[in-house]
Amino acid sequence: MNTEQKLNMTMLCDFYELTMGNGYFQAGYQDRITYFDVFFRDVPDRGGFAICAGLDQLIDYILDLHFDQEDIAYLRGKQIFSEDFLTYLENFRFTGDIWAIPEGTPIFPREPVVTVRASAIQAQLIETFTLLCINHQSLIATKANRIVRAAQGRTVLEFGSRRAQGTDGAITGARAAFIGGCRGTACTISDQLYAVPAGGTMAHSWVQMFDSQYEAFKTYCEVYPTNATLLVDTYNVLKSGVPDAIRAFNEVLRPRGITRCGIRLDSGDIAYLTREARRMLDEAGWSSCQISASNSLDEYIIRDLLQQGAQVDMFGVGERMITASSQPVFGGVYKLAAVEDDRGRIIPKIKVSENVDKITNPHFKKPYRIYDRATGKAEADYITVWDETVDASVPLELFDPRATWKRKTYTDFTIRPLQVPVFQGGRLVYQRPSLQEIQTYCMEQVETLWDEVKRFENPHNYYVDLSQKLWDIKQSLLRQSR
Amino acid sequence: MNTEQKLNMTMLCDFYELTMGNGYFQAGYQDRITYFDVFFRDVPDRGGFAICAGLDQLIDYILDLHFDQEDIAYLRGKQIFSEDFLTYLENFRFTGDIWAIPEGTPIFPREPVVTVRASAIQAQLIETFTLLCINHQSLIATKANRIVRAAQGRTVLEFGSRRAQGTDGAITGARAAFIGGCRGTACTISDQLYAVPAGGTMAHSWVQMFDSQYEAFKTYCEVYPTNATLLVDTYNVLKSGVPDAIRAFNEVLRPRGITRCGIRLDSGDIAYLTREARRMLDEAGWSSCQISASNSLDEYIIRDLLQQGAQVDMFGVGERMITASSQPVFGGVYKLAAVEDDRGRIIPKIKVSENVDKITNPHFKKPYRIYDRATGKAEADYITVWDETVDASVPLELFDPRATWKRKTYTDFTIRPLQVPVFQGGRLVYQRPSLQEIQTYCMEQVETLWDEVKRFENPHNYYVDLSQKLWDIKQSLLRQSR
Repeated sequence: MNTEQKLNMTMLCDFYELTMGNGYFQAGYQDRITYFDVFFRDVPDRGGFAICAGLDQLIDYILDLHFDQEDIAYLRGKQIFSEDFLTYLENFRFTGDIWAIPEGTPIFPREPVVTVRASAIQAQLIETFTLLCINHQSLIATKANRIVRAAQGRTVLEFGSRRAQGTDGAITGARAAFIGGCRGTACTISDQLYAVPAGGTMAHSWVQMFDSQYEAFKTYCEVYPTNATLLVDTYNVLKSGVPDAIRAFNEVLRPRGITRCGIRLDSGDIAYLTREARRMLDEAGWSSCQISASNSLDEYIIRDLLQQGAQVDMFGVGERMITASSQPVFGGVYKLAAVEDDRGRIIPKIKVSENVDKITNPHFKKPYRIYDRATGKAEADYITVWDETVDASVPLELFDPRATWKRKTYTDFTIRPLQVPVFQGGRLVYQRPSLQEIQTYCMEQVETLWDEVKRFENPHNYYVDLSQKLWDIKQSLLRQSR
Repeated sequence: MNTEQKLNMTMLCDFYELTMGNGYFQAGYQDRITYFDVFFRDVPDRGGFAICAGLDQLIDYILDLHFDQEDIAYLRGKQIFSEDFLTYLENFRFTGDIWAIPEGTPIFPREPVVTVRASAIQAQLIETFTLLCINHQSLIATKANRIVRAAQGRTVLEFGSRRAQGTDGAITGARAAFIGGCRGTACTISDQLYAVPAGGTMAHSWVQMFDSQYEAFKTYCEVYPTNATLLVDTYNVLKSGVPDAIRAFNEVLRPRGITRCGIRLDSGDIAYLTREARRMLDEAGWSSCQISASNSLDEYIIRDLLQQGAQVDMFGVGERMITASSQPVFGGVYKLAAVEDDRGRIIPKIKVSENVDKITNPHFKKPYRIYDRATGKAEADYITVWDETVDASVPLELFDPRATWKRKTYTDFTIRPLQVPVFQGGRLVYQRPSLQEIQTYCMEQVETLWDEVKRFENPHNYYVDLSQKLWDIKQSLLRQSR
């Protein structure tokens, strides 16, 4: 990486964050303390849960938050911001608090994934980037996790850079896919930046560049004897691709005692072709040869291929994962939950809507996850007001916030807070885990979910319940708003 | 913008570009001249045409192509690349030729949008980024153009940053949306970088921050008297939103003689609410007040809203445009079309496939567009071998390459080459137009298409035909491959 200009992501904000900021400043609200929640309403692909991701890039953004002189000059040129406000921006940095659910955690609708406590201007200014970052990576991590689960333990690799929506879509998209369970990526820079293992062997053009397919394969095996995965579908997989690969393996690898090798298919009927290829390889003494498949794969196609007996050791998944093409938007929102008055009292705020699902959960809140002690399985999430305590030694009765007669009492449970402190008074207080640690944690946490929550079709609706105190406050605010 | 580290996009490449590069180097193929085409096979959303975009960022990438010492060190750490190759990469830069169809041009399946002539290693290395860049921006420009056409002359603004797939998805996505016809964006940094006009006024949180909605509106009008667009749906659009807005306009703007103002709706039934709001505003003497609407809009919803008499002056379109959510992938591919032999002769190459649509058009080609002289309308695209000339003074007979008995003769036509030279011998020879020029050009070019090509449902299949010479070569190569 070189040391030229880079973009100041502080400027990646919706313009209204700045017009509102200037407005708060003019109205004397710049020091008013506000609480905002990031949450989402629907799991993509009608799944039972999502995987949150993107916090690490959000942290980088917050740490770097500032306006350069040329940013100020640009804003001055708009001729709508006061000089007082522009001066204020010169020394702008984030001095608030942020709590967040760690990356890799399964998350559910309507619970606060990120909570920001900051002055109105600061909290507003970071809205756009915070949402972009959490929405994008949670989208891809969630999709990748679905695809990885469909592969039932087989390796899944991320191959989508060329179809990603922009450079960052490729780069942090590969990172998010790794969190979701992919073992690697084709994207070199994601390896360099985030240690997402990058790999890859050849394209059709390699095969076309040589006088014959056999020549192409042989040369490749000679250059990379210990890592030769040959693309066998340029001409005809079974008539020439696999036979030429076997011949190259026999002539170059066998004399050197190398058994590790692979073939890759990128077209045609993967179920049939891989079964036949497997048979041919085994008969030729290359049962050690791994078979990789790619070609418009997703969780449904992988599931079907495996049901049809496809002999695939490794799936390369491209555009359908890197864009989450079946539902390419993660609908996280950023909503005001509370403000502090002059005496520091926290005043809950609610956003009402004709659409009941769009009414927000007010107040500064703390989300918890309840696990059954006997099974270790996650049973429900429980959202309290910030100053409540939960005692796991006494029975806990939860109720459905939209059907309060539906009640369930937990007796033998453990409970843990979902959010961790990330920034306190503008200072980073969170020990950032490695990407590998996040992936491992994600796998462990997904393991705590019941299969009913994990199935693709019509999954069980995991409970996200409110404490009695929070529910009472919400009802009271709803009555007041009428 | 600050002057810290930035990413070296040379490293945004699929790892196999590097393993192949090293392989070509070892095999003595590093100086072999190759020709690659970027083309796509299907128009997104079953549309009749796409809009190409992304060339400007591709140019930046090519100009900056290089490996830093830390990139080399990273590659060395992989322990699969030869030292000769790593030394070669130290001085790597692009020295080839690139031709491209200018941004904003309507493009059709199977024609070369970008053609690269370069050494095998160079041409291969730029594959991933070239595709990513052209695919992403063409996707968004195409989607934006559909939405803008649905709005029938009303203003469309891009509002999607928070739901974009990564930072670049937001930033260059807003640029591509402008090429497609949007008049502006909410994304501040896209204005700063690319002069996509950014604007925006307030979020619901502004309204919630004040003691009353009226207070919030009044304060906003006082801070921005000449640019007050008030969000009227925080509580109830018709009962309090529009009345409070009218009151604020009356009290703050009217005494100053200001007539320019607006309201914005972000929820509810836009057709009904805007008709009622229009009536209320007009009755209150605010017929100058513009009405903006947003809320999960796309080309179909906008078309329906207008058919239902919605009174909207400006549409803000978010996630469905910035992710092209109905079909979030532009399937551009990068395929070898020819190589040069030792004597500089161009040897056409073809990629065969069982799927007839996936067979490539071989050779170094030149695409042209034929316009009817009387109407000025685009009639067909015509792809020739590079050394053919076209004489517009004699009749030109075209035939369908997949049904050669379907023939049409053009007599009174003009013809122009679609591609322009962009790089020659590694040197930029293209005069890059401004973004506004690209948008204007795009609108002009879309105007040359028949309405039949532009309709959303079942559009006319625009002709992309091959010259007799090119068709003959293709048939000959297909016979040889059998």
